[in-house]
Amino acid sequence: METDPKPLVMVDAALFTIRNQQLCLILSRRKEPPFEGAFALSGGFVHVQEDSDTEMAARRVIRHKIGFDAPYLEQLFTFSGAARDPRGWSVSIAYYALIPWALVEGNSSISTFPVEEVPALPFDHGQIVAKAVERLRGKATYSSLPIFLLPAEFTMNDLHQIYEQTIGTRLDKASFRHKILEQDIIEPITGHFRVGAHRPAQFYRLSSKALTPFERKI
Amino acid sequence: METDPKPLVMVDAALFTIRNQQLCLILSRRKEPPFEGAFALSGGFVHVQEDSDTEMAARRVIRHKIGFDAPYLEQLFTFSGAARDPRGWSVSIAYYALIPWALVEGNSSISTFPVEEVPALPFDHGQIVAKAVERLRGKATYSSLPIFLLPAEFTMNDLHQIYEQTIGTRLDKASFRHKILEQDIIEPITGHFRVGAHRPAQFYRLSSKALTPFERKI
Repeated sequence: METDPKPLVMVDAALFTIRNQQLCLILSRRKEPPFEGAFALSGGFVHVQEDSDTEMAARRVIRHKIGFDAPYLEQLFTFSGAARDPRGWSVSIAYYALIPWALVEGNSSISTFPVEEVPALPFDHGQIVAKAVERLRGKATYSSLPIFLLPAEFTMNDLHQIYEQTIGTRLDKASFRHKILEQDIIEPITGHFRVGAHRPAQFYRLSSKALTPFERKI
Repeated sequence: METDPKPLVMVDAALFTIRNQQLCLILSRRKEPPFEGAFALSGGFVHVQEDSDTEMAARRVIRHKIGFDAPYLEQLFTFSGAARDPRGWSVSIAYYALIPWALVEGNSSISTFPVEEVPALPFDHGQIVAKAVERLRGKATYSSLPIFLLPAEFTMNDLHQIYEQTIGTRLDKASFRHKILEQDIIEPITGHFRVGAHRPAQFYRLSSKALTPFERKI
């Protein structure tokens, strides 16, 4: 059995949202040392008497920060070593989550930064963010992932924008529309349209097909 | 700071090889409780005074098992919770590695099982194996990964077989050859041929391009 000192075990979560048409990271200031007052990812120690596994620990930490369960949460990578945290040899199981901006807009304890303008972060949070952005952008191109950044009902235009903003490149509108409809990951909501200056725009929602394998885990 | 009991922190490694033209998992019998005598993955606790991070812990465990560093090692996923190990709430940072069969052929402390015929395994090792096979097969189709299952020098025929065996499906020989050469991940070794019953077969080796991003980490 184990005789060595045990590592510290924590979870850290990179929370993404789309704000002002830009992919942003949600950060908040640390309330305790080390690095008190610095912007950092949401994180915390695993509580073995409370958390059934590290994913539940990440959910607890995120819920504590934003007040509700993240619509999409995925394990990213585990970071570890003697140097990453001044408190000692530690393991951080890192996650990333997608949060629709409308759900956190009034939260005064969080700040958002476009992913290209994230400040220097304590610990190895900069590395965690870089890996999370890479994973999100890589996966966004072949999955329904960006849809989790939208409210439950959205137009084709909303969807096109959110894919462009998540991936970070322009996408031809006509071929995007064709590709999305072909994949059966969204479905029109019968009789439900956005009415405005232009012709009415059909509202869509995620189809049951989009929920596998990218299950909406609320 | 942390007051809760800390989780146990360990690494587990799924070692793959190609034997008798089949993708196989390398297992060995556990030498101590729990599950003493059962076939299981190679694993062990993280030693904070010895390992600089969990990857180095995985390398140490693998080196201890097979006598040398794994030519390819990648972090897979972190498994955790109160139930996965009878010794207590634990975190296992799981890795997978690719090992050319020629390098372990004489090792009497290991056994190989085709990935479709793996016996029931203790802990959550069955889940780890399932995820590792999925990752390896998914990644093999668009990377130089299977090459790490070969010796340093190989023919186009060797390479075609190893891709078929790793991915688990037939691949058209001519288009495979075309695709591989197009990607510049291998290069011919000038003047070096396998001579046999057929016409001489050119030997190849990994090109420097294949080493990024799938770096051969010896």
